Amino acid sequence: MSVDEQIAAVAWNADGLAPVIVQQWDTREVLMLAWVDAEALRRTLTTGRVTYWSRSRQEYWRKGDTSGHIQTVRGAQIDCDGDTILLQVDQTGAACHTGTRTCFDGRDLDAVVGGEQA
Amino acid sequence: MSVDEQIAAVAWNADGLAPVIVQQWDTREVLMLAWVDAEALRRTLTTGRVTYWSRSRQEYWRKGDTSGHIQTVRGAQIDCDGDTILLQVDQTGAACHTGTRTCFDGRDLDAVVGGEQA
Repeated sequence: MSVDEQIAAVAWNADGLAPVIVQQWDTREVLMLAWVDAEALRRTLTTGRVTYWSRSRQEYWRKGDTSGHIQTVRGAQIDCDGDTILLQVDQTGAACHTGTRTCFDGRDLDAVVGGEQA
Repeated sequence: MSVDEQIAAVAWNADGLAPVIVQQWDTREVLMLAWVDAEALRRTLTTGRVTYWSRSRQEYWRKGDTSGHIQTVRGAQIDCDGDTILLQVDQTGAACHTGTRTCFDGRDLDAVVGGEQA
């Protein structure tokens, strides 16, 4: 399938965006969640460097251009509904702007573990 | 922090929802992405069984009640922005309603791998 066809197949939300789950390709750590529009997805799939759409700044954001903490693409999938993208990357340094490896590090929620089995 | 305080700390979107990245706790496979509102998150954190908000059906959806493919909670984190939840679960059977283990299985996008290094 061409890049155009792949992008056309995405079920974009009302804002023209789709969430991207970003995973370190080898350790399978979930690093962060970010958003792409069609153009950001095109740049990501065609260049091997990950570009997002920043909802807060309303601009394209090629990961690492400011921080040096770049992400290179190792693989990409779309989900059964066509509205979520999973991206395997090789993350240089910290994925999180706070300096932690992932955006979830040290941010545990208290949860009851396990629960009833049926 | 109490469950109420944890839920109050989430940066809910305009629809009162937050995305949940769902990961198999031991293999670290990303199984799916789903959505919770405050009540679904409360049920998930307090019962050990995962409950989502179905945007298409506009109802609560306790994973596995129909399919038997339940998810029990192993851990939960919130991200640096407070608007995305990462959930580690133990998935019974297929996570995807299509019958595949994850919602991303066999749904590869063609991507240029690697790319320039700076």
